[in-house]
Amino acid sequence: MSASDMKIIPPKKLSGKAETLLVAGGDSFVSEPVDKLQLDYGGIVGDYHHGLTRKSGGREPWHKRGLEMRNERQITILSAGELEEIAEKMGIDRLEPGWIGANIVVSNIPRLSMLPPRSVILFDGGVTLRVDGYNAPCREAGKEIARALGAPAPQVDGQPDYKKSDMAFSFAKQADRLRGLVAWVEREGEIATGETFTVRIHEQWIYE
Amino acid sequence: MSASDMKIIPPKKLSGKAETLLVAGGDSFVSEPVDKLQLDYGGIVGDYHHGLTRKSGGREPWHKRGLEMRNERQITILSAGELEEIAEKMGIDRLEPGWIGANIVVSNIPRLSMLPPRSVILFDGGVTLRVDGYNAPCREAGKEIARALGAPAPQVDGQPDYKKSDMAFSFAKQADRLRGLVAWVEREGEIATGETFTVRIHEQWIYE
Repeated sequence: MSASDMKIIPPKKLSGKAETLLVAGGDSFVSEPVDKLQLDYGGIVGDYHHGLTRKSGGREPWHKRGLEMRNERQITILSAGELEEIAEKMGIDRLEPGWIGANIVVSNIPRLSMLPPRSVILFDGGVTLRVDGYNAPCREAGKEIARALGAPAPQVDGQPDYKKSDMAFSFAKQADRLRGLVAWVEREGEIATGETFTVRIHEQWIYE
Repeated sequence: MSASDMKIIPPKKLSGKAETLLVAGGDSFVSEPVDKLQLDYGGIVGDYHHGLTRKSGGREPWHKRGLEMRNERQITILSAGELEEIAEKMGIDRLEPGWIGANIVVSNIPRLSMLPPRSVILFDGGVTLRVDGYNAPCREAGKEIARALGAPAPQVDGQPDYKKSDMAFSFAKQADRLRGLVAWVEREGEIATGETFTVRIHEQWIYE
């Protein structure tokens, strides 16, 4: 098969809105709502994931852990609709985006989690983000949901171990392909709550 | 259509070899063979395209020209086989990779130009590159082929204007989906001529 035999899907454009902005200002990824985000090439200024580089971890099984690498996972983008879907599938009343480290919660983008890598998100105020890609759900995030909701969890040294709770496992399973995207900063600047944006999706094909 | 209805193509692994390494050490993208590449987070040290940031241009029609943006187009990767294909389609005897700004010419990767964005290229020596994506051919590169081969070109102020030569137009057309990739540095280090590598392709799908 040659390149010319591949089915090419033409570029596509979408429009959405940043409903909620959040920063993880503490010593974990748990984030809190703010009015604006200030972005530089390391990500969101003051955020837990800010940095031009980061340490490799479980998401890069091809690296040893703890190696310095370029930080392409600067910003966590979630869909308001997908959050509702996850909550429904998990059988919980609500899933606060901050519990799982959201930085931007958007509306109007169907299947946000499946936006292809290299897509460009252009905010009306001038900031642009590049989609690295889908962010697979893990029990680290599920743990914070369990903690926030006080879910039953096995006791370890007299403390609940929420990472081993049924709810943490449930999140990792039910949030499959709904847990949003990670992205990096292409153009610096500020994003305000309620700001609208367009998404440019490049040509697509399947490499088999 | 929901995410769960999408056809998901599982991850894939390939192996290849870096046959030739090149650096553009002058004031243009034209590159010359070297023994090794030294890479930091800006790209190839001493190369024309090195930089954590770059200026926006014709490839980003969504930006005004000349804006500062993150440099995701650090390294140009070409396939030895695709170069031969382009030369054949253009009806020329040879196409030196340096004429069109190659940094790494690889073998053994079928349809290199169509490797999907977010693919990771892991060199055996420890350097890793992330594929930004396909690099569409333009007349700027075609111009250098025409110049190198002394192709007929219209005269402007007594000088041949190779960008307007038939050969420059021919390259832009015939190199379609064969002109290789641009990539950025995920892990710094050195790449040596002849070094082998693996490519990890993530899950794939079409977003329609």
